[in-house]
Amino acid sequence: MFGLKEIVRRALAEDIGRGDWTTSIVPLDALGRAVITAKAAGRIAGLPVAEAVFRELDSGLVWQPLVSEGAEVIKGLDVAEVRGRIVSILQGERVALNFLQRASGIATLTAQYVAAVAGTKARIADTRKTVPGLRLLDKYAVRVGGGTNHRMGLDDAVLIKDNHIVACGGIRPAVAALRRSGAPFTLQVEVEVTSLGQLQEAMECGVQAVLLDNMTWAEMRQAVELAQGRVLLEASGGITLETVRAVAETGVDIISVGALTHSVRALDLSLNLD
Amino acid sequence: MFGLKEIVRRALAEDIGRGDWTTSIVPLDALGRAVITAKAAGRIAGLPVAEAVFRELDSGLVWQPLVSEGAEVIKGLDVAEVRGRIVSILQGERVALNFLQRASGIATLTAQYVAAVAGTKARIADTRKTVPGLRLLDKYAVRVGGGTNHRMGLDDAVLIKDNHIVACGGIRPAVAALRRSGAPFTLQVEVEVTSLGQLQEAMECGVQAVLLDNMTWAEMRQAVELAQGRVLLEASGGITLETVRAVAETGVDIISVGALTHSVRALDLSLNLD
Amino acid sequence: MFGLKEIVRRALAEDIGRGDWTTSIVPLDALGRAVITAKAAGRIAGLPVAEAVFRELDSGLVWQPLVSEGAEVIKGLDVAEVRGRIVSILQGERVALNFLQRASGIATLTAQYVAAVAGTKARIADTRKTVPGLRLLDKYAVRVGGGTNHRMGLDDAVLIKDNHIVACGGIRPAVAALRRSGAPFTLQVEVEVTSLGQLQEAMECGVQAVLLDNMTWAEMRQAVELAQGRVLLEASGGITLETVRAVAETGVDIISVGALTHSVRALDLSLNLD
Amino acid sequence: MFGLKEIVRRALAEDIGRGDWTTSIVPLDALGRAVITAKAAGRIAGLPVAEAVFRELDSGLVWQPLVSEGAEVIKGLDVAEVRGRIVSILQGERVALNFLQRASGIATLTAQYVAAVAGTKARIADTRKTVPGLRLLDKYAVRVGGGTNHRMGLDDAVLIKDNHIVACGGIRPAVAALRRSGAPFTLQVEVEVTSLGQLQEAMECGVQAVLLDNMTWAEMRQAVELAQGRVLLEASGGITLETVRAVAETGVDIISVGALTHSVRALDLSLNLD
Amino acid sequence: MFGLKEIVRRALAEDIGRGDWTTSIVPLDALGRAVITAKAAGRIAGLPVAEAVFRELDSGLVWQPLVSEGAEVIKGLDVAEVRGRIVSILQGERVALNFLQRASGIATLTAQYVAAVAGTKARIADTRKTVPGLRLLDKYAVRVGGGTNHRMGLDDAVLIKDNHIVACGGIRPAVAALRRSGAPFTLQVEVEVTSLGQLQEAMECGVQAVLLDNMTWAEMRQAVELAQGRVLLEASGGITLETVRAVAETGVDIISVGALTHSVRALDLSLNLD
Amino acid sequence: MFGLKEIVRRALAEDIGRGDWTTSIVPLDALGRAVITAKAAGRIAGLPVAEAVFRELDSGLVWQPLVSEGAEVIKGLDVAEVRGRIVSILQGERVALNFLQRASGIATLTAQYVAAVAGTKARIADTRKTVPGLRLLDKYAVRVGGGTNHRMGLDDAVLIKDNHIVACGGIRPAVAALRRSGAPFTLQVEVEVTSLGQLQEAMECGVQAVLLDNMTWAEMRQAVELAQGRVLLEASGGITLETVRAVAETGVDIISVGALTHSVRALDLSLNLD
Repeated sequence: MFGLKEIVRRALAEDIGRGDWTTSIVPLDALGRAVITAKAAGRIAGLPVAEAVFRELDSGLVWQPLVSEGAEVIKGLDVAEVRGRIVSILQGERVALNFLQRASGIATLTAQYVAAVAGTKARIADTRKTVPGLRLLDKYAVRVGGGTNHRMGLDDAVLIKDNHIVACGGIRPAVAALRRSGAPFTLQVEVEVTSLGQLQEAMECGVQAVLLDNMTWAEMRQAVELAQGRVLLEASGGITLETVRAVAETGVDIISVGALTHSVRALDLSLNLD
Repeated sequence: MFGLKEIVRRALAEDIGRGDWTTSIVPLDALGRAVITAKAAGRIAGLPVAEAVFRELDSGLVWQPLVSEGAEVIKGLDVAEVRGRIVSILQGERVALNFLQRASGIATLTAQYVAAVAGTKARIADTRKTVPGLRLLDKYAVRVGGGTNHRMGLDDAVLIKDNHIVACGGIRPAVAALRRSGAPFTLQVEVEVTSLGQLQEAMECGVQAVLLDNMTWAEMRQAVELAQGRVLLEASGGITLETVRAVAETGVDIISVGALTHSVRALDLSLNLD
Repeated sequence: MFGLKEIVRRALAEDIGRGDWTTSIVPLDALGRAVITAKAAGRIAGLPVAEAVFRELDSGLVWQPLVSEGAEVIKGLDVAEVRGRIVSILQGERVALNFLQRASGIATLTAQYVAAVAGTKARIADTRKTVPGLRLLDKYAVRVGGGTNHRMGLDDAVLIKDNHIVACGGIRPAVAALRRSGAPFTLQVEVEVTSLGQLQEAMECGVQAVLLDNMTWAEMRQAVELAQGRVLLEASGGITLETVRAVAETGVDIISVGALTHSVRALDLSLNLD
Repeated sequence: MFGLKEIVRRALAEDIGRGDWTTSIVPLDALGRAVITAKAAGRIAGLPVAEAVFRELDSGLVWQPLVSEGAEVIKGLDVAEVRGRIVSILQGERVALNFLQRASGIATLTAQYVAAVAGTKARIADTRKTVPGLRLLDKYAVRVGGGTNHRMGLDDAVLIKDNHIVACGGIRPAVAALRRSGAPFTLQVEVEVTSLGQLQEAMECGVQAVLLDNMTWAEMRQAVELAQGRVLLEASGGITLETVRAVAETGVDIISVGALTHSVRALDLSLNLD
Repeated sequence: MFGLKEIVRRALAEDIGRGDWTTSIVPLDALGRAVITAKAAGRIAGLPVAEAVFRELDSGLVWQPLVSEGAEVIKGLDVAEVRGRIVSILQGERVALNFLQRASGIATLTAQYVAAVAGTKARIADTRKTVPGLRLLDKYAVRVGGGTNHRMGLDDAVLIKDNHIVACGGIRPAVAALRRSGAPFTLQVEVEVTSLGQLQEAMECGVQAVLLDNMTWAEMRQAVELAQGRVLLEASGGITLETVRAVAETGVDIISVGALTHSVRALDLSLNLD
Repeated sequence: MFGLKEIVRRALAEDIGRGDWTTSIVPLDALGRAVITAKAAGRIAGLPVAEAVFRELDSGLVWQPLVSEGAEVIKGLDVAEVRGRIVSILQGERVALNFLQRASGIATLTAQYVAAVAGTKARIADTRKTVPGLRLLDKYAVRVGGGTNHRMGLDDAVLIKDNHIVACGGIRPAVAALRRSGAPFTLQVEVEVTSLGQLQEAMECGVQAVLLDNMTWAEMRQAVELAQGRVLLEASGGITLETVRAVAETGVDIISVGALTHSVRALDLSLNLD
């Protein structure tokens, strides 16, 4: 992952600050082996990040994943081991776990959503509601959970939302303004709509995707019929694990869920020296 | 908050990347007013961070909090408004909300724990289980929620945990090693114990605080009696909103809760242009 | 332009290093007025960048553009003036001109290509053949010249080129691999083709754009007929000011020209104190 | 080259951004060999920079130059090969070529100027008219082309130009001000002059070099006679490949040419997988 | 030492700037051996920093300390050798010596203070009067000299000084304000006092340490009696090598000396090629 | 001073770390006035740096120097005042003083050397023996003290020392190698010599300056006679306040003194709130 090293370095600097005084009581040459264990069931994500944490601290540490990235684990299962200088292991422990627990929490929740829509054509997508500074990792974890990514930022796709539409005086003038704006022709354009009329208007403007904002299931079904596969349809707005299946069955292509990354329950993991 | 500007800048860079193409369709000189509204009840934290986001983007934006930092709000209440160029407001919206929703989520949960122990002497504390890169903000939000902070990193206090004790061959040799280590004499020393015997040993070593790891309530009460106020007692390990009151009533000084920051449920907030 | 300040700061640091010793002979309080003059005809681009250079050095400098960004100027025309401390003006002179001359050179050349295809539907686009570190500015100058931008980097659009196709065993498996890859669904997909057969295959895969690599004009015309407007067609490869009109008349949508940014002839500009 | 790694890293970050989605369709373990080939004749410069690009991306790549740095190549000649993971090669391709093509373009043009003055004592020098951010590389390429470098920035030599002279009220007071200014005594001092009288005055001030600004060839010859080798004479101002020989034959020591770096024609190079 | 690499990199960049032109006259492949020799007696500190300088410049250099870190050396003793490319050795020489001479100067002076109080219980401590940017190294050198560190910055301990006390209206309200302030409960609290009455007040507030500011030896003795070991007593203010023993004999725990780091006499060391 | 802001920012970050907990007990809105007072006689340098520290922390602070930069002060004199929020004043106090005390210490010592050679033509110069990270400030303080700067780094002048000469096989081949090396022709060249023979050789090579290494006064006088003003003569090596006058009277142009910056005695200054 490009840029991972920098993120890891900053996280270590944040935790270690001017130095880990506690670990200074452990002999520098004491070697050991630590195991990371799942204390709850879930899907593991972030193993390469945890590895990068330990490698950054001490290139002599040996990291060995015991399950593969994306594996579903049960409570009590060992997921990785790290061997080498105890001082280094203990210094990296918290940061490695912080990354791993968050990413695994995201992957676990995503996988639940993905499972809930199994058999439909709908794909589960994330949003930009990520933790500042960790967007790449949050979105990576969504992929490990079986989800797909929505745009990564404000610059890799166009999403014309209600506020933009109001400010431009309608969908048509908004899309026209975009064509004149000098934005790269290589960007996909998506428009947020709240009615079938707006969907129709957006399709006539030649956009590639449409976000159906807080529509009822009935409206979504009508939207699917209207679109006939000519645009990608994304459902969004307050969709939960309880409702996601019904949404998927309306035939939309994408279901985006902010909670995947904005309300993450860390997967419980612990590191113990043998 | 020292260093806030840098965190905000990085968050904006992460989201905006090479530029916000969508907003380029809104006339640069269009002015407007947007309101941030609570879509759920909770405690607001992070208003100065949200303000810093908008100021960093456009020093011409006028930010007006409508409630004070730390206020308890009900669903539907407006919490802040921002006025100025619509382009700037829309570019900053997501980042400002991402900060504000997380901080408010932390403050909301912390306040619930604090309320649960009201009337006891126990204070609710956080841990180092924060999101990499946001520790200062996460811990700030805990304070807004009425909690107190545990150490900020590995360098501003000593916490000798089980792994260190094992590696040094006991509490006594561990504390002795610390005295020899050159660590600043200004650092407070805390030792993790799992039994009353270890507590006794730690106190004899002259440490200032003791972490009672996963003790039963009965053990905690005995620890309180044994300590007689000569050391600070911290309870830790799997404490929930359901059990925290009972823990507090054992007489411990500090109750630390990882979930305050590792499993945050974002407070639902939205920004709308008038 | 987001991030401009940082680019300007780095450019000044590069030039000034440990300090401008020569200017230290000019009295710190001497005030003056300098004018930037075109010494050749062309299209001006980069005025806000030049302004940012002077502002970064000395917030007391007053910058006044005398033509608008994107104006066509003749030799001898004054394009901007800057007033204030002479020391600051002289320190910023070279960096400001270096930015302005390159951007204006790009805009001038782009405008010539755009003029050459006037009346056709073709748009002139740039490539990723920009100077390392200045991509945003180089591409901005292309827009000022009337061109449109191709993707800004490897992350804001997919472009499957010959090497990728070979490595995947064909267009169809390449596009299929992309669908499985977890790449954001919001990315537009373009495929490079060298024959009508490949164009047909790419269209059947549902891509949004096709790059016609080094095709003859006759082939391009056939491609236009085949595509029927269902995909965006981009012509590329060795197109010059002499040949660009003929390419445009084949009916392609986009003509991309590497020379716009990789072989820039700086527009001759000078700064003189009154 | 000190600092090269940082420049390369920034260039890669600029191009790759949040990740190269296209290359994600190529199997991570696919190995290959790519060759960089000259598509036009010229002088190769920047091979170590291209190597640094590939090494930074993937330390497992094996880089093998096929010609030496500074070699004159003909169209069709292979100049380097790189072997290893195809994914890494393709990700680095554009950035490596952008560096290599610009540096080779500079070296090629410089070598033409150097050849044009062969047999005279004149040396060809560059200016500070380089691309912001790439001065070290641009000036390195000039050296590879056989040229010599003028000062690298505002801090490693003093160059008193017309504007400084006016602001100080003459050459004599300007040099006197410099002596009083605290500028390091280790800096060489050069003064720009437009007449023989000024040259005489500058020499009397004890400067080490004089820049003859836009003088006629006759004036230059007189200047050479007047100087008698006691100061270094630099000719500057609108000198082209057509006129440089005549300038050199006047007997000046240095001929500086802004076009070497401000109007670079990239040398055409391509990278192809076997 | 965490963060050392960055400090070393910045120091090299500061010295090398755009490149070491002088060393370019030495053949790149010339190998040699250089020895660092003490030209005065003292205590060596900073060997790992000097090593990091040479490694950062050229990973092929072989560094061999000839004495151990913290060794007392006499004039003429060789303290380390470095072998490899002469170009690299000469480029790193000055920076390596600058670090090593300062650190050794600090360690030498600290060791003199430590020796002066030998046999008493007093420990010698530093202050925050370090050179901006080198605090970690300055304080490390104090430890090598046998001293102990006072707090590393404003964030890892609380020190309530006269100005704070005045601003809060007394010691009692100051400590009370701290308890309410949300400062981490893990921080040790020290209060500066100028009288025995204040010492009594500070102890009643439950602080862990007290700084006796500019007290006479008699007062210090009384303070020691009053404190009875219940708080740590630190003596501070104008203590010299001449007076430190007398201060130590009063029975205080800590003696802090600003001169250890603010008025360093570099230990004279030289590097010579064989 | 270009780059000052960055140095100041880093120094504050180093001291403040995650936040100044002590100052959090002072009311945020309490205003005050603090005075910086000389506790010893000396020359003041660094006032603009101290101002930058306070401004960086709090743009609302008002800084008022009470003496001019470079003033000689007696013990007890107030040198500057700062007014505004007490919290900000106390947070910046230590960093501002650390800068100011070091710079004033350097200026004070330099002024003593300069005074010692008054009436001779010799100028006092510094060396590269500065504290890593503070070279610009250290050398600035030397100028405030009336000294002149030697080269700022390895890149703004050439100094061929004994090691280079040995590695190249003599002065003549060393200078010849430099001419071939591509080093900017704008760099002044200095050669270190240990005998009159070497001085003669250096002069024949056309260098601009010669460093007389550890010569006796008699040798220096002979060197002055030999040079006849055709090269700048610099005396160096173990020169003290006691010997500097005699050295100056030999007629050398420059006397460089490492102790000016490598063994600085901080000028004693204190900050007190009214």
